[in-house]
Amino acid sequence: MTSEKRKGLLERLAEGPVIGDGSMCMTLEKRGYCTAGPWTPEATVLYPDAVRQLLREYLRAGADVLQTPCFYSSDGKLEYSDVKFTSAEINAMACKLAREVADEGDAIVCGGLSPVVSYIQGKGEKAVRKEFEAQLQVFIDYDVDFVLAEFFGHVEEIEICIDVMKRAKKPMGATMRIGPIGDMNGVSVEECAVRMAKAGADMIGINCLFDINTCLKVLRRMKKALDDADLHPYLMCQPLGWLCPEVEENFCGYLALPETPLGLDPRTITRMDAHRFAREAYEIGVRYIGGCCGIESHHIRAFSQELSKERNKQPAVNDLCPKLGAQLCQSLLPNIREKVKDKFWMDLTPASGRPFSPAISAPEKSATFMTK
Amino acid sequence: MTSEKRKGLLERLAEGPVIGDGSMCMTLEKRGYCTAGPWTPEATVLYPDAVRQLLREYLRAGADVLQTPCFYSSDGKLEYSDVKFTSAEINAMACKLAREVADEGDAIVCGGLSPVVSYIQGKGEKAVRKEFEAQLQVFIDYDVDFVLAEFFGHVEEIEICIDVMKRAKKPMGATMRIGPIGDMNGVSVEECAVRMAKAGADMIGINCLFDINTCLKVLRRMKKALDDADLHPYLMCQPLGWLCPEVEENFCGYLALPETPLGLDPRTITRMDAHRFAREAYEIGVRYIGGCCGIESHHIRAFSQELSKERNKQPAVNDLCPKLGAQLCQSLLPNIREKVKDKFWMDLTPASGRPFSPAISAPEKSATFMTK
Amino acid sequence: MTSEKRKGLLERLAEGPVIGDGSMCMTLEKRGYCTAGPWTPEATVLYPDAVRQLLREYLRAGADVLQTPCFYSSDGKLEYSDVKFTSAEINAMACKLAREVADEGDAIVCGGLSPVVSYIQGKGEKAVRKEFEAQLQVFIDYDVDFVLAEFFGHVEEIEICIDVMKRAKKPMGATMRIGPIGDMNGVSVEECAVRMAKAGADMIGINCLFDINTCLKVLRRMKKALDDADLHPYLMCQPLGWLCPEVEENFCGYLALPETPLGLDPRTITRMDAHRFAREAYEIGVRYIGGCCGIESHHIRAFSQELSKERNKQPAVNDLCPKLGAQLCQSLLPNIREKVKDKFWMDLTPASGRPFSPAISAPEKSATFMTK
Amino acid sequence: MTSEKRKGLLERLAEGPVIGDGSMCMTLEKRGYCTAGPWTPEATVLYPDAVRQLLREYLRAGADVLQTPCFYSSDGKLEYSDVKFTSAEINAMACKLAREVADEGDAIVCGGLSPVVSYIQGKGEKAVRKEFEAQLQVFIDYDVDFVLAEFFGHVEEIEICIDVMKRAKKPMGATMRIGPIGDMNGVSVEECAVRMAKAGADMIGINCLFDINTCLKVLRRMKKALDDADLHPYLMCQPLGWLCPEVEENFCGYLALPETPLGLDPRTITRMDAHRFAREAYEIGVRYIGGCCGIESHHIRAFSQELSKERNKQPAVNDLCPKLGAQLCQSLLPNIREKVKDKFWMDLTPASGRPFSPAISAPEKSATFMTK
Repeated sequence: MTSEKRKGLLERLAEGPVIGDGSMCMTLEKRGYCTAGPWTPEATVLYPDAVRQLLREYLRAGADVLQTPCFYSSDGKLEYSDVKFTSAEINAMACKLAREVADEGDAIVCGGLSPVVSYIQGKGEKAVRKEFEAQLQVFIDYDVDFVLAEFFGHVEEIEICIDVMKRAKKPMGATMRIGPIGDMNGVSVEECAVRMAKAGADMIGINCLFDINTCLKVLRRMKKALDDADLHPYLMCQPLGWLCPEVEENFCGYLALPETPLGLDPRTITRMDAHRFAREAYEIGVRYIGGCCGIESHHIRAFSQELSKERNKQPAVNDLCPKLGAQLCQSLLPNIREKVKDKFWMDLTPASGRPFSPAISAPEKSATFMTK
Repeated sequence: MTSEKRKGLLERLAEGPVIGDGSMCMTLEKRGYCTAGPWTPEATVLYPDAVRQLLREYLRAGADVLQTPCFYSSDGKLEYSDVKFTSAEINAMACKLAREVADEGDAIVCGGLSPVVSYIQGKGEKAVRKEFEAQLQVFIDYDVDFVLAEFFGHVEEIEICIDVMKRAKKPMGATMRIGPIGDMNGVSVEECAVRMAKAGADMIGINCLFDINTCLKVLRRMKKALDDADLHPYLMCQPLGWLCPEVEENFCGYLALPETPLGLDPRTITRMDAHRFAREAYEIGVRYIGGCCGIESHHIRAFSQELSKERNKQPAVNDLCPKLGAQLCQSLLPNIREKVKDKFWMDLTPASGRPFSPAISAPEKSATFMTK
Repeated sequence: MTSEKRKGLLERLAEGPVIGDGSMCMTLEKRGYCTAGPWTPEATVLYPDAVRQLLREYLRAGADVLQTPCFYSSDGKLEYSDVKFTSAEINAMACKLAREVADEGDAIVCGGLSPVVSYIQGKGEKAVRKEFEAQLQVFIDYDVDFVLAEFFGHVEEIEICIDVMKRAKKPMGATMRIGPIGDMNGVSVEECAVRMAKAGADMIGINCLFDINTCLKVLRRMKKALDDADLHPYLMCQPLGWLCPEVEENFCGYLALPETPLGLDPRTITRMDAHRFAREAYEIGVRYIGGCCGIESHHIRAFSQELSKERNKQPAVNDLCPKLGAQLCQSLLPNIREKVKDKFWMDLTPASGRPFSPAISAPEKSATFMTK
Repeated sequence: MTSEKRKGLLERLAEGPVIGDGSMCMTLEKRGYCTAGPWTPEATVLYPDAVRQLLREYLRAGADVLQTPCFYSSDGKLEYSDVKFTSAEINAMACKLAREVADEGDAIVCGGLSPVVSYIQGKGEKAVRKEFEAQLQVFIDYDVDFVLAEFFGHVEEIEICIDVMKRAKKPMGATMRIGPIGDMNGVSVEECAVRMAKAGADMIGINCLFDINTCLKVLRRMKKALDDADLHPYLMCQPLGWLCPEVEENFCGYLALPETPLGLDPRTITRMDAHRFAREAYEIGVRYIGGCCGIESHHIRAFSQELSKERNKQPAVNDLCPKLGAQLCQSLLPNIREKVKDKFWMDLTPASGRPFSPAISAPEKSATFMTK
C-alpha cells in the first residue's frame, strides 16, 4: 500500500527542511468530533469525512508528512472511555485515512508510538516492550513510511521504544515532551538528546507541552549537546499552538494551565509567530518542523511558506493563500490594502482585546503526570 | 427543492431561540480555501468538500439555519478579483451545498443580500433596486427558506433592500453592521431599529464589525426603541468571534484594528464568552443568535448548549461534545478531572500568554468605508 | 498678610497658563502623615514640617498657587473622626503654612470650599449657605488670594456656593467632580459648565475622581458648550494622578475601583503622561492646570516644563531637574545616556511589570455617594 | 557623637528583624532635589530640609537604621558632574543629617561604601584599598554605628572592601547587586554568599537592580549555600521598589529597562507586595529588610508593620497610619468601609489602568556595566 515512487523521510531531510502536520484531537474537539477528557479518536470510524478534511488541510498547507490519527487508541484506554470500537478497527481506519489523503499530494505517512502504562506501573522492560510491539504491529501491517516515538516523559522509556521500533526496519523519529527542566526522572535536556540519538533514532527532538519560545530554548541546548557529543541525528520539533511562558519550569507544561483545555483560544499563536518560529528553528538546525496540539493549518502554512526557498517548493495552499497579506492589495478598504507588505505583519504586536485579563496565569500546583 | 416538512423560520422563532451558523470566509481562509483580501467564495466550486465540511460543523453544533456561502459573489466584485467563475455558477453551487447539508439535519436555508455599489455611487433608487433584484433572483430560483438583508451601513439602503425582498414572499430578516454611534449617515441605533421594522422585516438586528459586548449594548438600545414604538419584530444578532472593545466608536469596527485580518487569533472569544453572550442576548430578547466572522463551531455549540432548555433540544454535537467540561472527569490527569464543573469554566478569566502584548490596540485612523 | 506686590490670579491667567499644586491628603498618607479612611488634615498642626515640605515641592515644581491644606476640616467631620483639634485651629495653621511657603517663591494662596452635609440632607438653601459662610470666613480672615468651590457633585449646590463666595470679593474658581455622565442629578456636562459660568465664577472646570484622559474628554465638551453660549470663563482642571479608564461612566470615579485607596501605585501616571496632558489641556483652552489626588511634584514639574514657553518661565526645580532626561547624558551607563532626547521618553509605552495583573478592574457596583 | 545608649546593629539583629530605610536619590529626584543622570547628592548641602524630611519619613515608618545620604559622593564622580561642593563637605553633611534624624527616634546610622573606579580600571589591589580607605575615613570620623559595603558587582572587589572595613572596628554588612546569574565574573550566587561571609562580614546579602521576587529567589539560594557551608552571617536585602521580572537574567537588572529611570511609575510595588515580601524574606531567614531605589516610606511601613510581632514594636507612623486599611471603617463611603480587613487587600490583584501597555518590556541589549 506504500506510495511507491515517493521520496522517503531520510531522503527528504537530506534535501531540506521537512514540514509535519498539526493538531489532531484538540482541533477535532473544537470542530465537534472528539471529546475533551477521554480524547479518543473514534471520529476516525464515525466521521471519516471530518478527519479526512483536517488531514487534507495540513496537506494543502505544505505538510510532507501525515501522522496516522490514532493517538490514545489502545484497547486499555478505549475500554476506560467506553468507546464502541476496538483499537484495531480505529487504527486500521487511521492508517487508511492518512494514506488516502497523503496520496492526494506528495506526502508520506508516519505512525506514532506513545508511552505505555506498564512503564509507569513498573512492570519491567519485558512488559513495556510487549506494549510497544503491539503499537508497532499495526504500522508494520499498514506499511507506514516511518515510525515515531513521541510524547515521552522518561528517556529510559523512549530508549526501549526506539529499540523496539528497529524491528520495523523503517526510519525512526523520537520526541520527548520535555522543557528546560528535563525528563521526569531528572535527566537533563542535554542527556535526553544524546541518549535518544545513541539509542538509534534517525531524528530526535521534542513535542507537545511547551510553546514555541520554550521549545526553541530546549532545542538550542539539545543541538549543542549533540554537537559536543559528535552525534548528528536530524532535529525535530512539534510545539504547541498556544503561548504559555508561565509553565516553562513545570513537568506538565500547558496541562498545568487553568485554561487547559477549554479556554486556550486567547493564547493561540498568530501566523506571524509561526513564521518566526520556523525561521528560528531552522537556524538552530531543526529539519522537521510540525505542530502538536493547537497548531492548525494556517500555522503549518506559515512554516512551509517561511521556508519555501530552503524547501524549493510552495505548498498547494498557495493557489488561494499566498504568504501573509500578499493579496490584501485586493481589499476594498484602503487601510487594509496598506497591509500588503510582510513587514507590517512581522512588526505587529497583537493585542489580546481583553483588558480584564492578565498576561499570564498561575499554573495549577496540583498538575501532575503519573510517575514511575 | 425545499425541505417540505420542516418548520419555517417564523414557526421556529415562535417556539424559542433559533441558532444561526458561523464564520464562513475568514474560517475558510485559515483552512486554506479563501484568499485574504478579495475574500471571494470560489471555494464553493473549487473545493466543495471543504465548504460542505464547515457547514456540517455548524449543523452539528446546533445551527437551525445555514446561509448560502456566496458572500461577495457578484459579477462586478468577481471580475475585480480575477476569479474564473461567474457569480451565477458560484451562487448556484452555494445554494446547493447549503441545502444539501441542511438536509443532513433539520436545518433551513437562508439567502443573504448585501449592500450594493450603486447605492454608494449615488446612482439612485432605481439602480439600487435592480442590483438587489439580481441578488434576490438566485434565492428565488433555488427556493431558499428565507432571505436576509445583512451588513448594511446605511438604514436608507436596507429599507430599499427590504422592500425589494418582499417580492420573494418569504420571511425576511434585516441586519445592519452598526455599533453605538449608529449608521454611516448619523442615524441613531434606535431609529435604525424602528425603520427596519417599519420597512417590513420580520426579524431585525445587527451583524459583523463589533464584538459580543458591543453588540449587547446596541441590542439593548434597539429593543427599548422598538418597545417604545410598539413594534415587535424578532431580534437577531451575529457578532464577531473576536474581542475588540477599542473600536466601539468606529464606523469600521474591527476593520480598523491593526490586527485585522491576519493577527486576530489572540482576540478569539472562548466558548465561555459564547455561553455568556447567548444567555445575555436571550435575556435582552434576541431570538436569532448566530455568528459572523470569527465565530466557529465551538462557539455555535456554546450558543445552542446554553439555550438547550429554551430550545427543548440538544445539538447533534452533544454525542461527542457535551456542554463545556462534562467529560473532563475521564481525563487521566487529576487536575483536569477537577475541571468537570461548569462553574470552574464560567469563573475563569483566561490569560493571553503574551506578556509583551497590550490589552488593546490603537485603531487605525485611516480606516474608512466608502461613503455615499 | 497678602503678598502685596504679587500678581493676582486673574492677572496671571490673562498672561498665560497658571500651574496649580498637587495631591495633599493621599500623598501625606503615603509619607505617613494622614490616615486613610478619615483623611483629616491634623498633620497641619501635628507635623507642620512635613506639610510645609510637600507644599515646597509643588512650589519648586512650578506651582503658581498653593491651596490651603485643610480639606475635610469642618468640626462635624473632625468630631466624627475623633481628632483632638478644632477645625479653626487646623484651618488657621493651613492658611499660615500655605502663605509661608508661597512667600518662599512667587506663588499665591487659594482657599477651597467643598460640598456641605446640609445640602445632601435636604435642609434647604439657608442652611447650605450658612455652612458655606463658615467655610469662607477663615479664608476672609486669612486673606487668601482667591477662593475655589471644588469637588461638587451637584451643580445646584455649587451655584449656591459661588453666590456665597461673592462676599469675599476675591477671584472665584469653581470645579465639579464630574465625568462624561454629568452631575448626580443628571445635569449634563455642558449645562454644568454654563451654569457655573453664569453663576459668576471667573474660572470653571473639573477636579478629582477621573483620570487625565477622561478629564480631557469632559473639558472639550465644556469648552464647546461655553463657546456656544458665548461665555468665556477661564477653564481649570485638576485631574487624578492615576489612570482609571474603567470608571468613566461611574459617578464615583476612581472611588469605585477595588484598588482605591491602598493599591493604586501601578496606575500612577508617568511624567510623560503629565506632559501630554498639559499640552492637550492647553490646546483645548484650559488655563489653570493643577492636580488632585495622586498628582505629585514630578507631575506638576512636567506641567510647568511642558508649558514653559507659554508661561515665559521655568520652575525653580529646573536648577536640579531640567525637563525629562536632559541630564541623562551624564549617566555612567551608555544605554542610559542614549535616552537624553525627549522623543525617547514621549514615544515610550511603559510596561506594568505585572504579568499576573489585568489592564483594568471591574468597578465596584456598591460604590455610591450619598444623594440628596 | 554616637547615640550612647542605643543598641547596636548586632544586638538588634540578635533580637529580631531589623528594618532599614528606603530609596534616596530616585525619590529625591521625583521630589525635585536630585538630578537624573549624575544622581549626585548635593541636595544634602543645598536642601537639607528636604533630605531630613525624607529620612524622617523612613524613621517614622519603622526604620531602625538610616544610611548616610552620600551615595556616589566621591571627588572623582563629583568633578565629572560639575557639582560645586567637595565630597568632604557633602559627606560630612550627610553624616550629620542622618545622625540628627536618627536621634529623633531610636535609630542608628550606617555608612555605606560602594565600588571604586580603580577596581574596574584594573589598577591593582593597593589602589583599590586606597579608595576604600578614603570612603571609610569619613565614617570613622563621624563615628557611624556600622558600615556597609553595598552595590558590588564583583565578589573579588567586595572581599577587599570588607577587609578594609575591618579597620573601623564596627559591625560590617556586605551586599552585592547580583541576580540569579551571579556576579559579573561568572561567580555563582552561592559562592558570592559564602565568600562574603568568609571575608568577615557580619551580615551579607543583596541590594538594588532586582525586584522583590527575583531577590527572594537569590536569597533562598544564598541561605542554602551558607547553611551547607555551616556559615551563619545575618542575611540582608534591599530590593527595588519596582517590579521587573523581565531582567532577571540581565547583569544590569532594571537599568536595562527602557522605562529606567523616568517611566518606572507603573511598576511601583504596592504596600501589599511589600507586606508579602517582608514575610517571605523573614521566613527565608533574612534579618535586615530595607529598600533600595523606588522603595518609599509606605513600603518601609509595610515591612515594619508586617513584622511587628517579631520585632515586638510598632513604627511611630502607627499613630496616624495603622496597618493597611485599619481606619477605612471611618470612610464616608460604604464601599470603602468594607475594605477594612487585611484579607481584602492581600487578595487584591491590582490593575495597571493601562490597556495600551504590555506587562513587560524587552530589556535593552545595549545595557552594560563597565567590566574589569
